[in-house]
Amino acid sequence: MNTLIRDVTIIPMNESELIYSGDIGITAGKISYIGTIPQDFSPDTVIEATGMIAMPGLVNAHTHLSMVYFRNYKDAVENLHDWLSEIWPLEDLLTADDILPASRLGIAELIRSGTTCFADMYLFPETTCKAVQESGIKANIGLTLFGGLAESKRRMQSRIPMVDPFMLCSQGRIKLDIAPHAIYTCPQDTLEYARDFARERGCRIHTHISETSKEVQDCLNEHGVSPVSYLNRLGLLSPKVYLAHCVHPIAGDLELIAQNEAFVVHNPSSNCKLASGIAPLATMRDLQVGIALGTDGASSNNSLDLFHDIRLASMLSAVSTGNPIAVTPFEILRMATFGGASALGRQEECGTLEVGKDADIILIDTRKPHLTPCNNIFSALVYSAKSTDVDTVLCQGRVLMRHGVLTTLDAWDAIVATTHHWNGILSRAHQPKSRGW
Amino acid sequence: MNTLIRDVTIIPMNESELIYSGDIGITAGKISYIGTIPQDFSPDTVIEATGMIAMPGLVNAHTHLSMVYFRNYKDAVENLHDWLSEIWPLEDLLTADDILPASRLGIAELIRSGTTCFADMYLFPETTCKAVQESGIKANIGLTLFGGLAESKRRMQSRIPMVDPFMLCSQGRIKLDIAPHAIYTCPQDTLEYARDFARERGCRIHTHISETSKEVQDCLNEHGVSPVSYLNRLGLLSPKVYLAHCVHPIAGDLELIAQNEAFVVHNPSSNCKLASGIAPLATMRDLQVGIALGTDGASSNNSLDLFHDIRLASMLSAVSTGNPIAVTPFEILRMATFGGASALGRQEECGTLEVGKDADIILIDTRKPHLTPCNNIFSALVYSAKSTDVDTVLCQGRVLMRHGVLTTLDAWDAIVATTHHWNGILSRAHQPKSRGW
Repeated sequence: MNTLIRDVTIIPMNESELIYSGDIGITAGKISYIGTIPQDFSPDTVIEATGMIAMPGLVNAHTHLSMVYFRNYKDAVENLHDWLSEIWPLEDLLTADDILPASRLGIAELIRSGTTCFADMYLFPETTCKAVQESGIKANIGLTLFGGLAESKRRMQSRIPMVDPFMLCSQGRIKLDIAPHAIYTCPQDTLEYARDFARERGCRIHTHISETSKEVQDCLNEHGVSPVSYLNRLGLLSPKVYLAHCVHPIAGDLELIAQNEAFVVHNPSSNCKLASGIAPLATMRDLQVGIALGTDGASSNNSLDLFHDIRLASMLSAVSTGNPIAVTPFEILRMATFGGASALGRQEECGTLEVGKDADIILIDTRKPHLTPCNNIFSALVYSAKSTDVDTVLCQGRVLMRHGVLTTLDAWDAIVATTHHWNGILSRAHQPKSRGW
Repeated sequence: MNTLIRDVTIIPMNESELIYSGDIGITAGKISYIGTIPQDFSPDTVIEATGMIAMPGLVNAHTHLSMVYFRNYKDAVENLHDWLSEIWPLEDLLTADDILPASRLGIAELIRSGTTCFADMYLFPETTCKAVQESGIKANIGLTLFGGLAESKRRMQSRIPMVDPFMLCSQGRIKLDIAPHAIYTCPQDTLEYARDFARERGCRIHTHISETSKEVQDCLNEHGVSPVSYLNRLGLLSPKVYLAHCVHPIAGDLELIAQNEAFVVHNPSSNCKLASGIAPLATMRDLQVGIALGTDGASSNNSLDLFHDIRLASMLSAVSTGNPIAVTPFEILRMATFGGASALGRQEECGTLEVGKDADIILIDTRKPHLTPCNNIFSALVYSAKSTDVDTVLCQGRVLMRHGVLTTLDAWDAIVATTHHWNGILSRAHQPKSRGW
């Protein structure tokens, strides 16, 4: 199966700000040619892409997919911890059945906004795996640990037999990570269990860290060190660890992350919306911390649109440093592509457009008033582009969206089913129905 | 001419967070009914709006429309003043002919993102008037003053005969304001001339104020008072004045603006991108300053999409105050509608959906994954909505966009013509051609 993307502006997002004009050849799901295609390349499918930019699919490195239910719900709270106390009782009412439509809805939103790979951490991961499998997107699915060791082991024992088959038959699209929720929800023995599990299985660790100043202060009070140092003390910093948020590193934390080659996932919308703070992105970059971008859940963002976070990351780094080019548009886009792929252990497979890598490609239609004229392609993508400019999405060479229409998921079905299930959840919680639509 | 908008969720954006479900009747360009329509209302046109939200058209209260040429151009500068020194020499090369395609392009972008009224300040205002007239949008067109009194008078004498006819035949859509650029580009006699001109004509004054800390410090050094106090000393604060930016008010400035019932136009994207700072939005609101929102020019934003600034205004107010609900989503939307209408002297005419007001209405299609479920309509519009969810735009009851397609402007023509003219400008500046598309 050969696909040809014809007459496109190509930004490979590798280390230089390179721009090609040419074609892309795809063979058996991988990029076989970039720029110039040999005359004997015989495509089964041709995608005409005049006026489009081809770039790597975005990697959303921190989500809680099925929290779409809580989108714009209980927004009027004072901080993360108050908000969690509103959300947790409702989460206790969720069933595996509820997770399927919400996962489909979330994946529809991800694909529509140009994302080809995401990292999730949530309840009933096997159900999210099912939605990932049928949609054709890639995901690092976190097996979530929350609470004491017995509870954590119980969760793992019940989930692993259900998720492993999805991973095995996903052709590399699904990877399983272990996801201890946070240092303030997982005691030491649970964190150590996660560490040992990751070592044993060779998988990655996905967790929240230093999201609020309260978390940092509580950790200093309880353990005498920062959350980052505490993780390091337990042996949980390594090149296979990605840390969501890291808004409040204390002195030495970022150096520790960089030395251990762990990754930070920057979630600017969530951090602003919950008033957690502004992560020191330029400083992280200066210290050579590996950085990815994430939306966090649609409950604290309130969207899964990484273009929102690309733009916001740039805006915040400028205004918080007083330097408009503290972090350049190219650097932000690289965090949203190769940075995410690296955090998720997929840097050999995706995150840049290179021959031999999976054809995880998005085509952005530039023929719009708001993208005219094009004086700088990277600035245009960061400041002016919208996710709705994404015209076509391919993952492993398979077309998941063409001209804005999903090919593997029915977005309207997901909307209707999610609304129906959400009204069921509200009814079980004795809350009034959503307005719905 | 009667129009019926049928089966719509109506948020009138008046003082309460009211939500209707019903119909809207429009007669001769004005809203004649809201909610329930009398049986004898006989529509010529019916707009079926199931699944849509009807809200007032957005008011973008600070733009420099034809700066679309400089979109994503010379972004890599350290601050506003360095950036202006890159842009001004190019602006000197602009001709009236260049302004028409750029104005059309800018208006296309405004309408597509749900804006029905904007306030502009730029060169060759008569040409922007022409684009406003043919597009059907509303605008307060600023007659820009820049430099000494003689130069300012010369500008006015040459422009007024060209712009007045547009205003007179615009059925109230075009208003002419006077727009002294800033206290650092207009000497005292020019500012006084603007004040007297505004009094004489009964028009409004549109200017930049306290955009950067440098501007404030320079004014303190030169005049011994802040820019706001300096304007007040010259008699330039009144209910007919709107002040763009106001990022760095000093003690007493906001009280002075509130006492004089002048307006502030908040431009969060521009202020972040140029690293000017974060305006104290919650404090302004607390002091009862009238607040509007603006995008600023597409060169410093780099977009004219007010939905970007609605979201960013909320994000910044949360993170800068440490309080997620420092300014509520309803309040931000009110700034983007009634706040803008009030700043532009149009509060009796638009900015809310009320019987007797102009039918300046946008319909937002909510049947999207990223707007599901709808737990709070105001949160959804601020945090989750995109400008591309705007399906239909009416101004004075005339449909300017239907199902995302412009009816009065040809967006593709504007794209091609703008690119062509921009390459001409670059050629006159001995700069390489834009990539164009």
